[in-house]
Amino acid sequence: MSDLKVPVTVLGGGSFGTTLANLLAGNDVPTRLWLRDEEQAASMRAKGENARYLPGVRLDPRLVITSDAEVALKDAQLVFLAIPSGAFRSVLQQLAPLLSGKGLISTTKGIEQPGFLMMSQIVEQEVPGAPVAVLSGPNLAREMAAGALTATVIASDDPQLNARVQAVLGCPSLRVYASADRYGVELGGALKNVYAIISGMAAAMGVGENTRSMLITRALAEMTRFAVHMGANPMTFLGLAGVGDLIVTCTSSMSRNYQVGYALGQGHSLEESVARLGQVAEGVNTLRVLRQKSEEEGVYMPLVAGLHAIIFEQQPLQEVIGRLMSAEQKHDVEFSAFMPRRATDKEQQ
Amino acid sequence: MSDLKVPVTVLGGGSFGTTLANLLAGNDVPTRLWLRDEEQAASMRAKGENARYLPGVRLDPRLVITSDAEVALKDAQLVFLAIPSGAFRSVLQQLAPLLSGKGLISTTKGIEQPGFLMMSQIVEQEVPGAPVAVLSGPNLAREMAAGALTATVIASDDPQLNARVQAVLGCPSLRVYASADRYGVELGGALKNVYAIISGMAAAMGVGENTRSMLITRALAEMTRFAVHMGANPMTFLGLAGVGDLIVTCTSSMSRNYQVGYALGQGHSLEESVARLGQVAEGVNTLRVLRQKSEEEGVYMPLVAGLHAIIFEQQPLQEVIGRLMSAEQKHDVEFSAFMPRRATDKEQQ
Repeated sequence: MSDLKVPVTVLGGGSFGTTLANLLAGNDVPTRLWLRDEEQAASMRAKGENARYLPGVRLDPRLVITSDAEVALKDAQLVFLAIPSGAFRSVLQQLAPLLSGKGLISTTKGIEQPGFLMMSQIVEQEVPGAPVAVLSGPNLAREMAAGALTATVIASDDPQLNARVQAVLGCPSLRVYASADRYGVELGGALKNVYAIISGMAAAMGVGENTRSMLITRALAEMTRFAVHMGANPMTFLGLAGVGDLIVTCTSSMSRNYQVGYALGQGHSLEESVARLGQVAEGVNTLRVLRQKSEEEGVYMPLVAGLHAIIFEQQPLQEVIGRLMSAEQKHDVEFSAFMPRRATDKEQQ
Repeated sequence: MSDLKVPVTVLGGGSFGTTLANLLAGNDVPTRLWLRDEEQAASMRAKGENARYLPGVRLDPRLVITSDAEVALKDAQLVFLAIPSGAFRSVLQQLAPLLSGKGLISTTKGIEQPGFLMMSQIVEQEVPGAPVAVLSGPNLAREMAAGALTATVIASDDPQLNARVQAVLGCPSLRVYASADRYGVELGGALKNVYAIISGMAAAMGVGENTRSMLITRALAEMTRFAVHMGANPMTFLGLAGVGDLIVTCTSSMSRNYQVGYALGQGHSLEESVARLGQVAEGVNTLRVLRQKSEEEGVYMPLVAGLHAIIFEQQPLQEVIGRLMSAEQKHDVEFSAFMPRRATDKEQQ
């Protein structure tokens, strides 16, 4: 496998980018971490720590940290993109000449409007012809950095690119699973943020295990329904990038989306909730985009519609919940029809 | 719908049977609850409460509680079976003449050996020709009894039976979803108990969100793989009776299975763990049965094999975990091949 340990660059020095770069360097992969801000890069080099986004984690001394994009990218064969969604396209535009022909792996979740574009679709537009993949899963950066047993998914049309990412990133604490459903994996990562808001709201209302599980399961059914309509493989949602990521996102009280939901569940308005948090949660933007797209496409998404009604149409929480409980259609997994069924024992008799 | 509110009988006065009977009576469905023990029946009638299994919950005065099977069953058109798995077949044998021709709905989870039989398959053997269904989902009895918003699945080959159960049982706090995959729904209910042991074990070891989510997701993949091999529909496992029930079972610290796992994770032997608990957890029996069946059928179940090695083969916990992390195959949802994929936008271009 050692000949697969090609030079790698990580773009973006947030908590996830730093964690990835540190894991790669720890695997003895020649790794460069690029940050736009030279002051922060210098501080990380001096301290051996990302004091701002990953305090307390020692950076591997083999990791090269630079704000010089040419230095960062000149030898790289694989480039992980860990840039916030708001800056994603502009950074790619700026670096496109340096990225051409390299394997590009997006780790960023978000949907660009207009166009309903995933980040990897932006990569295809800005760096035409490059092999593209996405990395997604139940991956809290802080836990990965601390060496907790973690699993993630690398998804690409290009099985060779998947294999190369598995070779450089896999280690005893990180399992890297391969998938061919790039679109489904990426959509799962973006959509889950909406359901984290709903989970936070439910927690504020003091719901029990039955209700929490019902919400997560219906959320999974709903996001799968939408994704299948858009061309994804429903099986992706049984995996780490679907249900796995949804469980972490919906049960971890640390995420901004969950916290906005919690404030909403306490009866605050969106403005008040956002004010308490100090920033807009990604899921609020995704909700707006998803509501519009699901209406255009005619996909039934009662949880998205309900949350939209509460946040943007000033409908009372209890009324929306009552409507959800009485009006939702009564099939558990209604796209069963997509599946060829193997004969059961009974049918074989 | 009111003409669908046919007379119903519930067999078994444990927490789940009592909860079901109480919900049915509350829906104005003529409902009888049968218990074998007249003393307990008399106590419940006198107190208006099941002090032993559901203390603190007022029983609906319309509910008829009896230990006389003929009285209990003479008018019933639907019969819910909420009898422990160990007594399931013998009770059915005893009551079979009274059950003939009625719609029979099993709520009991377990696998009978020899034969690897689900409870509803025992019903088919003991009451030939009766329409059969199973009820399963993330349904903690105590929460249902308290009126918490809950969803459940009724599964049968017979859509009319499903519709009749939906009509009598559905209410503002309980959503009843229909499924045609009786075998998959029932298998999910039985298999989940094994993974609850693993979750308890992981909790005792202090794992974080990433690891917990990885375990639940791999558990889901593994139980789905087995169930699909046995003839179930994989889509069932995206629903309430699959992932929904798994989430509740693996995150609720109340279950006996979880508690046995917790003791094992603290380094106790199975004997010590069972001694602390005072009884054998269902999941321990299911583990043994499932290990044997998966070997016979050649189905890859690394979590089942690993837990079996820890409990019955005295292999050290850390060693088994190390092997799991390094040896498991590297595809996220490897039965993707079962699915017809819709063309993605990219492929359509």
